[in-house]
Amino acid sequence: MIRVPELIERKRDGGELSADELRALMLGYARDEVPDYQLAAFCMAVFFRGLSGAETYALTEAMIETGETIDLHSALGRKVVDKHSTGGVGDKTSIAVGPIVAACGVPFAKLSGRGLGHTGGTLDKLESIPGFRVELSTDELVAQVRDAGMAIAGAGANLVPADKRLYALRDVTATVDSLPLIASSIMSKKVAAGADAIVLDVKVGEGAFMKTLDDARALAGLMRDLGARFGRETVCLLTDMDQPLGRAVGNALEIREAIATLRDEGPPDFAELVETATARLLALSDLGLAETDARARVRDVLAEGSAVSAFERWIHAQGGDPDEGALPEAPVVHELRSPEPGYIAELHSLPVGLAALHLGAGRRTKDDSVDHAVGIVCLAKRGDRVEQDQPLAEIHARTDEAAQEAAEELQAAYVFAGEPPAERPIVLDVLA
Amino acid sequence: MIRVPELIERKRDGGELSADELRALMLGYARDEVPDYQLAAFCMAVFFRGLSGAETYALTEAMIETGETIDLHSALGRKVVDKHSTGGVGDKTSIAVGPIVAACGVPFAKLSGRGLGHTGGTLDKLESIPGFRVELSTDELVAQVRDAGMAIAGAGANLVPADKRLYALRDVTATVDSLPLIASSIMSKKVAAGADAIVLDVKVGEGAFMKTLDDARALAGLMRDLGARFGRETVCLLTDMDQPLGRAVGNALEIREAIATLRDEGPPDFAELVETATARLLALSDLGLAETDARARVRDVLAEGSAVSAFERWIHAQGGDPDEGALPEAPVVHELRSPEPGYIAELHSLPVGLAALHLGAGRRTKDDSVDHAVGIVCLAKRGDRVEQDQPLAEIHARTDEAAQEAAEELQAAYVFAGEPPAERPIVLDVLA
Repeated sequence: MIRVPELIERKRDGGELSADELRALMLGYARDEVPDYQLAAFCMAVFFRGLSGAETYALTEAMIETGETIDLHSALGRKVVDKHSTGGVGDKTSIAVGPIVAACGVPFAKLSGRGLGHTGGTLDKLESIPGFRVELSTDELVAQVRDAGMAIAGAGANLVPADKRLYALRDVTATVDSLPLIASSIMSKKVAAGADAIVLDVKVGEGAFMKTLDDARALAGLMRDLGARFGRETVCLLTDMDQPLGRAVGNALEIREAIATLRDEGPPDFAELVETATARLLALSDLGLAETDARARVRDVLAEGSAVSAFERWIHAQGGDPDEGALPEAPVVHELRSPEPGYIAELHSLPVGLAALHLGAGRRTKDDSVDHAVGIVCLAKRGDRVEQDQPLAEIHARTDEAAQEAAEELQAAYVFAGEPPAERPIVLDVLA
Repeated sequence: MIRVPELIERKRDGGELSADELRALMLGYARDEVPDYQLAAFCMAVFFRGLSGAETYALTEAMIETGETIDLHSALGRKVVDKHSTGGVGDKTSIAVGPIVAACGVPFAKLSGRGLGHTGGTLDKLESIPGFRVELSTDELVAQVRDAGMAIAGAGANLVPADKRLYALRDVTATVDSLPLIASSIMSKKVAAGADAIVLDVKVGEGAFMKTLDDARALAGLMRDLGARFGRETVCLLTDMDQPLGRAVGNALEIREAIATLRDEGPPDFAELVETATARLLALSDLGLAETDARARVRDVLAEGSAVSAFERWIHAQGGDPDEGALPEAPVVHELRSPEPGYIAELHSLPVGLAALHLGAGRRTKDDSVDHAVGIVCLAKRGDRVEQDQPLAEIHARTDEAAQEAAEELQAAYVFAGEPPAERPIVLDVLA
């Protein structure tokens, strides 16, 4: 029997817990033998004292042990790759990356979650597509990856159940903002879901969880090291989230933008991120490509149209209608026009995300339903030169009133200047 | 509706909470609207970040508001004094102080608790006395203080109920060791119990909650300031707990030592502490005595025997038999003898307390029962010169086997030296 107060006290006082102790703590929690209040105190002690690399690994391993794991490698006889983002405004990257990877002949399997707050979830975006099934059994997932080359599905309740409980507890006890706890939460699910190699997109900026490049780099380092301890090759991209990614923010609008990108007609920042992430995944895959060759391969697949075919094959396999015309459309489309001529110095992602949330594109609480049709398309982004009255953004809304409110929020997101701002690349850094 | 995670987060990040916020938090907790896990995280944040004087006051006030309060001053039409100790090994101070104060004509009322771990509780000690009733209603308490001059009774379940719950939570979440939380726990009960003036005995040393004089001084300062904010004159004595207080450790044995002290035959350190505490209480009382006069008054009361009479009046009033012969005696009394000649350099209080606990004098868990007869009498204490084979201590036990085990523990408590140790007074400092 572990003495939980002693473990909490040791962490509180800056000491280190053994792997056995962390395992007993976490399995005890999963079995309802260790109560929420002890975990809450423990997490707050971790917030202040941190966890060593060995502790983070042991905690992550114990969390994985609370549920089932998927061995995609054995099931498919291939090296499987996965991609994960820490969440941002307009982040539809996986929906474009998956089909390109699949088109290159590399199995892509991703278990995803739903969105809460101003950053949408990949599953919500996919559910814009009529008929699309997000719930797949493990057997269905494996079969689909084998037959259609890829799958993105909802993580079942039994994939790291301790993480679900612990995250909900951290959310209401102000203990979310701990880098080792964030790293173990993300990596436990990635490892349990069975990919051999993972590209992690760590968003940096005001619209992201990590506000500074230093924090993002620290988190990326923790996740890369955790991946290595579990024998998973992990590459982290640090990417800009000071402005929304691409132009579209909102579920069906983002699906359209992903399809456009697969047709090689995507917005430059998003297309660049998709190419970088995809090339990194291909370089990690069993194709054995060097990264420059991988990037050339991605360009080929986009140019020849096989990425779009892979997208259609995937959506069909998962029960959906891949035709863009089948996507829902909002009844009201309102244009926000520029109040002045000038350069866009900033397009703050947080108010854009909140405007989309208020239009109904996201959830304020986990029981909210999502309006797949509504959202925002940012026609002008940072660095663009605009004239007075030129359209800055389209607002796709359910009602005129909602559009008007969103216009006001959105207007505040745009900052103008007489000179163009310094260029800021989408990919800020890579940790491999 | 307060947003508890935001309050926890603000405290976590070093900010300050308003009185209204702390009140809402604590009353919400008492009403089961704020769950244990949020309080646990809050207390851990407080452990790291502390509380300001205003926050500590607001928290204490809110805790008091969760239950009933007793207005002794109005009920008795007199200034009422109280004495409290943070708990130590062999601490029977209140049982001797109360009768002396009462003998001087000053009303003394104390609500007390039971012991857990190696420091015994005053109620457990008093229950050694056959017939003694620790549970008094508020009306009975007031009547007894009026008629017999004093009372020491159990704190009812409705006196600061939030403190009971919070303390139990802190005990299992490693959040006990926070000076403002300790201060608010103690002072909430003192203020709710209604005394006008309070002498606090803050124990310092290995057998005490506060291990260092600095910590004890900090806690004393917090409690004195809290008392002042509530309009209660509060004097703090910082007293030595590196060795047991007096000679007796164990319930009935401590009652005997308290009676001996009332007869002016107590061990020097304990007698000195009793005189100091009593003189401080008299100086705070409505007698309007200067402290030197108060001390002379105490000496008189002890010399003329009226302290013993006051003790007998009190015990009778509360249903007990004040005759020493009525106290239980242990069937086995074993003498521990000195293995060598020399000076006692140290008599560590923690092993003495644990030996008494293991004999059955205390509780390991709150459901344990207490053996009132057993315990230890330390015949030799720090600074004493002993010859080889001279008795060091008496062990009062239920069985020979238990006595033998205690002897081994006790032996380890004694440290010998060729030279006498530096003198260390019982009262280390006074904060008034």
